[in-house]
Amino acid sequence: MRIIEGGVCAVPGVKAYGIKEGKQGLAIITGKGDAVGVFTQNKIRAAPVIVTSRHTPGVMNAIIAYSGRANAFTGKKGIEDAEKMASLAASALGVAPESIGVASTGIIGCPVDMDWIGSHVGEVIDGLTSEPSGSDAAARAIMTTDTALKQIAVEVEGVRIGAIAKGSGMIEPNMATMLAFIYTDAELPPESLHKCLKAAVDKSFNMLVVDGDTSTNDMVLLTATGEKRIAEDRFQDGLDFVCTELAKMIARDGEGATKFIEVRITGARSEDDAKKAAKAVVRSPLVKTAVFGEDPNWGRVVAAIGRSGADVNADKITLVLSNDGNVVALVKEGNIVEGVLAQAKMLMAKDVVIISADLGLGNGEARAWGCDLTCDYVRINAKYMT
Amino acid sequence: MRIIEGGVCAVPGVKAYGIKEGKQGLAIITGKGDAVGVFTQNKIRAAPVIVTSRHTPGVMNAIIAYSGRANAFTGKKGIEDAEKMASLAASALGVAPESIGVASTGIIGCPVDMDWIGSHVGEVIDGLTSEPSGSDAAARAIMTTDTALKQIAVEVEGVRIGAIAKGSGMIEPNMATMLAFIYTDAELPPESLHKCLKAAVDKSFNMLVVDGDTSTNDMVLLTATGEKRIAEDRFQDGLDFVCTELAKMIARDGEGATKFIEVRITGARSEDDAKKAAKAVVRSPLVKTAVFGEDPNWGRVVAAIGRSGADVNADKITLVLSNDGNVVALVKEGNIVEGVLAQAKMLMAKDVVIISADLGLGNGEARAWGCDLTCDYVRINAKYMT
Repeated sequence: MRIIEGGVCAVPGVKAYGIKEGKQGLAIITGKGDAVGVFTQNKIRAAPVIVTSRHTPGVMNAIIAYSGRANAFTGKKGIEDAEKMASLAASALGVAPESIGVASTGIIGCPVDMDWIGSHVGEVIDGLTSEPSGSDAAARAIMTTDTALKQIAVEVEGVRIGAIAKGSGMIEPNMATMLAFIYTDAELPPESLHKCLKAAVDKSFNMLVVDGDTSTNDMVLLTATGEKRIAEDRFQDGLDFVCTELAKMIARDGEGATKFIEVRITGARSEDDAKKAAKAVVRSPLVKTAVFGEDPNWGRVVAAIGRSGADVNADKITLVLSNDGNVVALVKEGNIVEGVLAQAKMLMAKDVVIISADLGLGNGEARAWGCDLTCDYVRINAKYMT
Repeated sequence: MRIIEGGVCAVPGVKAYGIKEGKQGLAIITGKGDAVGVFTQNKIRAAPVIVTSRHTPGVMNAIIAYSGRANAFTGKKGIEDAEKMASLAASALGVAPESIGVASTGIIGCPVDMDWIGSHVGEVIDGLTSEPSGSDAAARAIMTTDTALKQIAVEVEGVRIGAIAKGSGMIEPNMATMLAFIYTDAELPPESLHKCLKAAVDKSFNMLVVDGDTSTNDMVLLTATGEKRIAEDRFQDGLDFVCTELAKMIARDGEGATKFIEVRITGARSEDDAKKAAKAVVRSPLVKTAVFGEDPNWGRVVAAIGRSGADVNADKITLVLSNDGNVVALVKEGNIVEGVLAQAKMLMAKDVVIISADLGLGNGEARAWGCDLTCDYVRINAKYMT
């Protein structure tokens, strides 16, 4: 497997483009193939989630995505607007509306600006390109509080997998997450695609927490053009890598974040326990503020593991901070290591903080990703709407 | 039922005192009676939680509480220290160590300062008084990041219930919470006391979220001197009130908080659903930052309810902001009310923000309490340890 350039446009047959104007943005991606999706488990599902989940699994010709308004909690008008977005793209491309995926992101409870969308669809269609610049433009168009483009592409056994994503706040995916559009030229039956996508999402986006709020608009779509055969397990490897890298990009770009946090749990009684413990640590506001303050207050890590629901024995926990080959053990099998706090504090001054805990109870392992909790997170979200 | 002065000292036969010296504090409360407790469900239980849960239910003569270090994750030495604290109080009072409750609060992973405790027990014992000043001193001694004293007393049918509490951060109680010491002169069998305490805690401390971190040291102790008969349901009313008022005081004094949030859910499919929804809203960092910014971003409330696990139908939700008799309806049975945001913004400028949501599905009701998420919360917790 090797990383290549071009995001979604790295996949043969895929074109993309997008525009951003003030707080609104519009992106279109074209590429015909079998599409599968996973969607938010929030019971308030945004209109585009409802519409797109009706269109998948199935053959998809394009995705149209709007940023600025979530089109969530917008009633019947919201559904009509989402369907209209599909129709606008469909008629411009000469395909059926049911073959269009629709997505949106932004403020909940406001209708999308259909006039603006209607008057800009043509411009986006005209810009569609298979050059890497098309993927760049589409990824940029769907950004809201994001400060960095999120895209990646890999080649595995000749098969390409390319993707773009957005996400920065309201992030604790549950089943699906934020917006991520993945393309591949692999040939696999839809059931395999769906199984692979669910497995990849589980290990990647579902192990990501920025603030613990699950969005109403989360959506991951995978479209396979079916040009190249590949063994399912090799495809899974590639897809896992793509989803995990996107999840890490979102964690790094968490609203107001100054540091990226990776939590590695080993020795849990089960994989499920390891996941619970890893997510509890990465979700803890007290761990997140300590990381922001570069304060090696490891007791908060232990407390988070303790309340995670995972089986825990205080006498068996080993806790380690690491980064760039530097390792500081803070706790060894329940015993506090003395005289290491100054060293730990130095490690925490880095941009990346890796917290590893071995629970000493079994073989369960998991990783989770997040970011620190900063004054800027509060500032960004205190005045988002008005 | 009427509110009276004196905190724990309002209960006949109860004396209290405490001292604070820099970041350390020591409080002792005496009063003989049947004692029951509820304790943290964090699997990493602090040493005083382990020791005190061995001493209850049972006859208790006194409580000794230390602030500054949590005595959590401190291994065998932690247990020995907690037992030593009980012994110090017991020998000074001439009673059995098993009749002493031990509590502590502060940084996790550091042993308590037994020398400091040992050299100050005498001073605290000498200061014990049944005057209200004793309850004041004890409540002050157990404060850490707390900025306000937390105590209350009521008289219900001649029976008195008095309490002190502490708590400001690492607060999402699960089963029990922070430290709260409650005394009463009621005569009720220990099983009734325990049942009443669990019921009261469930409606009060367990509906409280400051930051979503459950402490290793949560403990609520109720001691009944047994002087006065009372019907269980009347006692329950008084105890519910006392616990709820303490929970609200803790929410008001949440770390860095500028506003108190009450969430009222009605019309849920079940009480359990109502509790889930109320806690999800009050826990949401995005709701909390919006309240801080006085931003009527009600979509975040809806999103939090949607991911709470409660049964929800977007078309049936009614959402109202209120305060001091002013009411602004934002959503009526799924329909967005237009032109009310300016009015909503004015209501959010108050110190108390009450968010009411009727789910329109049944008769389940619940209330939860919390506070806004501010830059000061981040600052307080970024440099707590070092």
